Amino acid sequence: METGLPKFDSAFSIDCVIFGFEAGELKVLLIERNEDPFKDWWALPGNMVENNESIEDAATRILYELTGLHDMHMEQFHTFGAVQRHPLGRVITVAYYALIRIIGQKEVKPVTKYAKKAAWRSVNELPKLAYDHSEIFETSIQKLRRRLGYQPIAFELLPEKFTLTQLQLLYEAILNKKLDKRNFRKKMLSYGFLKELDEKQKGVSYRAAKLYKFDRRKYYKIFQNDLTPEN
Amino acid sequence: METGLPKFDSAFSIDCVIFGFEAGELKVLLIERNEDPFKDWWALPGNMVENNESIEDAATRILYELTGLHDMHMEQFHTFGAVQRHPLGRVITVAYYALIRIIGQKEVKPVTKYAKKAAWRSVNELPKLAYDHSEIFETSIQKLRRRLGYQPIAFELLPEKFTLTQLQLLYEAILNKKLDKRNFRKKMLSYGFLKELDEKQKGVSYRAAKLYKFDRRKYYKIFQNDLTPEN
Repeated sequence: METGLPKFDSAFSIDCVIFGFEAGELKVLLIERNEDPFKDWWALPGNMVENNESIEDAATRILYELTGLHDMHMEQFHTFGAVQRHPLGRVITVAYYALIRIIGQKEVKPVTKYAKKAAWRSVNELPKLAYDHSEIFETSIQKLRRRLGYQPIAFELLPEKFTLTQLQLLYEAILNKKLDKRNFRKKMLSYGFLKELDEKQKGVSYRAAKLYKFDRRKYYKIFQNDLTPEN
Repeated sequence: METGLPKFDSAFSIDCVIFGFEAGELKVLLIERNEDPFKDWWALPGNMVENNESIEDAATRILYELTGLHDMHMEQFHTFGAVQRHPLGRVITVAYYALIRIIGQKEVKPVTKYAKKAAWRSVNELPKLAYDHSEIFETSIQKLRRRLGYQPIAFELLPEKFTLTQLQLLYEAILNKKLDKRNFRKKMLSYGFLKELDEKQKGVSYRAAKLYKFDRRKYYKIFQNDLTPEN
C-alpha cells in the first residue's frame, strides 16, 4: 500500500483473556511462551496484528493459533498503550475477553511453535505474567465484576444445570470475596430467574444437591425496564 | 529506540466523541478538517498518537489541540481496526467518549491549524463524517444507550437543576424515540432519586416548570445491590 504516513517503528497486537469455570474455580487460559522476549514466561494468548487483517480477524486467528480454540465470541474491552509496555518497540495492544462454559470439554493446545503449551490456571494462583499482561488481566476481571451486576455473565460460565453452591463459588471467585451462604441463596432465589429442576447432582459421593437452570427471559424482565433499549 | 520488530507502515490514532446537551438537544462536538485527506469534511476531533506518549496522554493532548477543551474525563470505549479505514496507510484508532455539562459555558476553538473550526452539532442532523467516524459515532451512542439503564449518565449531561421536560428530551435523544410524557414522569418520580426543589425555572416566557435535582446516593442505593461490588 502506498502511504503518506511517516514510518513508525510501531505495531499493534491482540491479547485474549479467556475465562472458564471448573471444579469450583474461576480460571484463565495462559500460554507458556517459546520465544524472546519473555521466553519461558506465562502470558495471555496474544500476537501481532498483520497489516492485511482487521483486528477482529486477528483476534480469532491468534486465539486459534495459540490455543486451538475457535468459534468463540470474544468481546473487545480495552486497549493498552503505555509507551514502554513492549521491550522491542512501540506496540499498543487491543485486549479481548471471552467466557466459556465447561472448560474440561475444550481441548487447549497451541497450533504454532510460538507457544510451548496452553493451560487453564486458577485466577487465585496466577504467576507474574509477561509484558503488562498482569495489568490486562486485572482490568478484565474488574470489567467482569462490574458486569456481574447487570448482565447474566455468571450463567455463561456455568453448565446449563448447576447447583447453588457452584453459583456461589463463581460469584465469590469473580468478586474475590466470601459471601454468606444463607443470604446469597435467599437473594438469588428471590429474584425469580432461577428455575429449580426436578433433578439432583449425579456422580457425587456426598449428599447430592438440587440442580437449577437459568431463566434468561425472566432475568431480562427483572433487570431491564422500558427505559433500557437493549440487552 | 532500537527495535527488533518488522517495520510496519502503520500508526495509531485517537478519536474523541464529546457529548453535550443544550436547548433540549443532544449534541456532539465536531471539527471541520483543514487538511487532506478529507479536507473540508466534518470529523470527530482526532489525530495521530506520537511515538513517545501513552494513548491516554495523546487523547488529552489531541482533544485540547482541536477544541481548546481540557481537564475532561474521557473514557475509552472501543478500538476500530478495519484494514482500509484510513486512505493513507494502516491506522487503527482508539476511541474515547466524554459527557459534558452545560455546553454553552465551554468555549470550543481549535488551537492548531489542523482544524478550521470546532462546533457542536445536533446528533439528529449530523453530516456524513470523514473516515469511519460515522461508525465510531454510532458505536458511541449505542454505548450511551446501554449505559443509560444502569449508570446515572443523564445527570452528567444535565445542569445541576433541571426540569422533567429537559430530562425527557435527553432520554428521547439518547434512545432516539419518543416517550410518553405521563408514563415517563411517573416512572422517573417513582424511583425516588429525583429531588423536587422549592424553585422554578427562571427567564422563560411560558409557564415556569418545577426544578429537580439528582440524588446520586439514592440512585446507587436503588440500582446497586450487595452482589455488585462497584459503581
